[in-house]
Amino acid sequence: MNNKQNKEIISRDVDFAKWYTDIVRVSKLASYSNTKGCVVLEPNGYAIWEKMQSILDKKFKETGHSNVYMPLLIPENLLRKESELVEGFAPEVAWVTEGGNKKLEERLCIRPTSETLFSEHFASSVSSYRDLPKLYNQWCSVLRWEKETRPFLRSREFLWQEGHTIHETKAEAEAETLRMLNIYNEFFHDYLAIPSIIGKKTEKEKFAGAEYTYTVEALMYNGVALQSGTSHYFGQKFSKAYGIKYLNRENKYDYPYQTSWGVSNRMIGALIMVHSDDYGLVLPPKIAPKKVAIIPIGDDLEVLSLAHDYQEKLKSEGIETYIDDSDKSPGFKFAKTEVEGIPIRIEIGKRDLDNGIITIVRRDTREKRELFTNTDIVRDVKVLLDDIQNDMYDRALRRREELTYTVTDMDEFEDIINNRPGLIKAMWCGDSKCEEKIKEVRGCKSRCIPFTDEKVDDKCIVCGKKADKLVIWGIQY
Amino acid sequence: MNNKQNKEIISRDVDFAKWYTDIVRVSKLASYSNTKGCVVLEPNGYAIWEKMQSILDKKFKETGHSNVYMPLLIPENLLRKESELVEGFAPEVAWVTEGGNKKLEERLCIRPTSETLFSEHFASSVSSYRDLPKLYNQWCSVLRWEKETRPFLRSREFLWQEGHTIHETKAEAEAETLRMLNIYNEFFHDYLAIPSIIGKKTEKEKFAGAEYTYTVEALMYNGVALQSGTSHYFGQKFSKAYGIKYLNRENKYDYPYQTSWGVSNRMIGALIMVHSDDYGLVLPPKIAPKKVAIIPIGDDLEVLSLAHDYQEKLKSEGIETYIDDSDKSPGFKFAKTEVEGIPIRIEIGKRDLDNGIITIVRRDTREKRELFTNTDIVRDVKVLLDDIQNDMYDRALRRREELTYTVTDMDEFEDIINNRPGLIKAMWCGDSKCEEKIKEVRGCKSRCIPFTDEKVDDKCIVCGKKADKLVIWGIQY
Repeated sequence: MNNKQNKEIISRDVDFAKWYTDIVRVSKLASYSNTKGCVVLEPNGYAIWEKMQSILDKKFKETGHSNVYMPLLIPENLLRKESELVEGFAPEVAWVTEGGNKKLEERLCIRPTSETLFSEHFASSVSSYRDLPKLYNQWCSVLRWEKETRPFLRSREFLWQEGHTIHETKAEAEAETLRMLNIYNEFFHDYLAIPSIIGKKTEKEKFAGAEYTYTVEALMYNGVALQSGTSHYFGQKFSKAYGIKYLNRENKYDYPYQTSWGVSNRMIGALIMVHSDDYGLVLPPKIAPKKVAIIPIGDDLEVLSLAHDYQEKLKSEGIETYIDDSDKSPGFKFAKTEVEGIPIRIEIGKRDLDNGIITIVRRDTREKRELFTNTDIVRDVKVLLDDIQNDMYDRALRRREELTYTVTDMDEFEDIINNRPGLIKAMWCGDSKCEEKIKEVRGCKSRCIPFTDEKVDDKCIVCGKKADKLVIWGIQY
Repeated sequence: MNNKQNKEIISRDVDFAKWYTDIVRVSKLASYSNTKGCVVLEPNGYAIWEKMQSILDKKFKETGHSNVYMPLLIPENLLRKESELVEGFAPEVAWVTEGGNKKLEERLCIRPTSETLFSEHFASSVSSYRDLPKLYNQWCSVLRWEKETRPFLRSREFLWQEGHTIHETKAEAEAETLRMLNIYNEFFHDYLAIPSIIGKKTEKEKFAGAEYTYTVEALMYNGVALQSGTSHYFGQKFSKAYGIKYLNRENKYDYPYQTSWGVSNRMIGALIMVHSDDYGLVLPPKIAPKKVAIIPIGDDLEVLSLAHDYQEKLKSEGIETYIDDSDKSPGFKFAKTEVEGIPIRIEIGKRDLDNGIITIVRRDTREKRELFTNTDIVRDVKVLLDDIQNDMYDRALRRREELTYTVTDMDEFEDIINNRPGLIKAMWCGDSKCEEKIKEVRGCKSRCIPFTDEKVDDKCIVCGKKADKLVIWGIQY
């Protein structure tokens, strides 16, 4: 096969890190820019983000949230009002110190996250329990001054959504925190075909300023874990720091309970590292911006006519389909669909057509099948898209299960992390010193305390003291 | 009527500037933030922007454009490569000078517009005529350090889209410049119900770095003109400055021809100032995020049941409808729909219902009509939405025509601008000194040279010399 594009991709089993950047480059998802640590999201990459946005945005609106837009810049005094947040973010913000040819009297930071701005807005716009809840979301980019960057995974600027809500009662706010976690989790399962794991972060790993943080964790093909979404419960911390006061039902001043939650274009990194292979990108059909590529071989009129007939039928059913009738060779076009992760490719050649046959190829397994030209193409494609979606989930789940270990002994823990990394279930006493000890094992960190009663032992894997918390540990991106 | 909300709005004929900010505040479109010169886009305001985005985005994609995302920050040396652009924008940019607790070696400016970044990306990603054209668009926010700010009209940060394209030939690039201008113009006519005027900017008023600039101009209710969208032809200026070279069909190095085009959330300001009135916002149905408000009066079960029945029918036809069953008074709810610019309000009361009657009210004229409860509500609403859309356009057109003058004499020119401002058609010799002279008349500027053969005289209105250019002049926001 004339497969120049695929040859530019190293095998993921040989050099996973290089394989990852090869995929990003060859599949034209993103490219480097002259702004250090920031990338250009190219059409293929941005289209995936748009698909993610449209699905999530619908879910947010269905659950009563409205989109808003807060300023990009935060005055320093505003940022400093909540001390934990400042400590967490101050080292990694960028400061604007000059504007309109003048030195500014007060520095402005580019938002690393917008709790401060939302809190300030709530403080000035909420006065009575009748104004509650406020259920807001914002789609924007944020900036964090990372030292080491990698496209989608860790970039100085990244695209995300941040939900910010305030509520009358603790119970309502806690329910919101969990509701949004579940929306993320469903999105991972149903659309991204990623068998994510949800749970609570430990005190050490929670968001700066939160009372607690829920997380969506996903396991990559190479056994490394990726924190892929978070949902935070703030209690009244921010509402007290920013003076968000309102008259409650007893006509007394009270502070509302607050949440925030977010996912970012890091999810594109997860898609790559969970599903893709040495031939390029593999996208779950439900998130693929283009679902079917039709490749006419040669410029025979009958061939082109059938290609257009199929395209029309598929498009009229809402299945994004395109015909590649460029002047490149068939081999090049086939490889292009593989590199770009188009879930289904239909090949139509003159000789096969004369025999009443076309070829349909699924991207995930690269399996080819012949179909009669008079087949019900819409039905065939729909069935195959579903199969691909489900099979991709199942394969990712099997991989996760293969790489999930239950461990009660520190030597075994170290052996796994060093030799066949994955997720490790082990007991923890709750002492942060024990958690710190585990970090010494090759950048391993607690991923989460899952929502389960499961116990794999009654002793902490580090100190041997009584332990009733099951923790999932893993190497972190 | 219990109309507290409307009473907070001053009459537009008494104090137009205050009326405008009253509308922004009372209709909850935007509110002030603690970041000087930047506003918070509240749910009502952001929903209008989302509607604009979804319509325009579809048009851009139908004409072959892909969305991408470029970095927010531009290194100083990159900005400085095109001298006219730098001169135009340098005085109004914000500079990041510190990041991650360190002083940066090179300042980074927050993008005021992204020609530089797109040009740099094109330079590194285009090598052959086969890579052309590149038809890109970006939705983002940009920052310009304005001294005087007003919500939507002039804000330090604003939301916009910027299209950037490169082409093999001059003819293709010029056609693109015009195509996008026409898309904007159609959008103004068909969706915003604004009878915009298109034309070319004079040399003085064109975009810094462009060979020429087309503009979409709109006349506000008070006779002031608003530049509402622009489409620029760059020729090879940027491609030479940024070294965008490619091998052409003759296998020789050549520079592509470039365009850029943009509209911003300033269009929300135009919507307000063209259509709204002393009762609040008036939105053309095609751009209104919510089209129908149903107000049940009291909590009678039959009333509520009919309200839900109507809502279901309208929603199933894709007409965004909501029921206001909050515990506020009917008068308050009525006023709220007026303030927020909901095109149609349906009032259902127990007494009327017993007589088989409901009331339907159109926002633009505030005209009430009674309907039988068994009416075909979907048909009625659709007809009325169309009527409102068309009538709003016609009213805006009449207003524009009333405020458009043809002038051949400088005294009359000054009299009009000072006493009954609007758009003035007058001849111009092409000398920028004459253009400057006109600026002395109360901030009047050339709006555009419209695409017309019309001549209203054969002499320049300023110097009296021979003139063959018809210019539209007006006071500028």
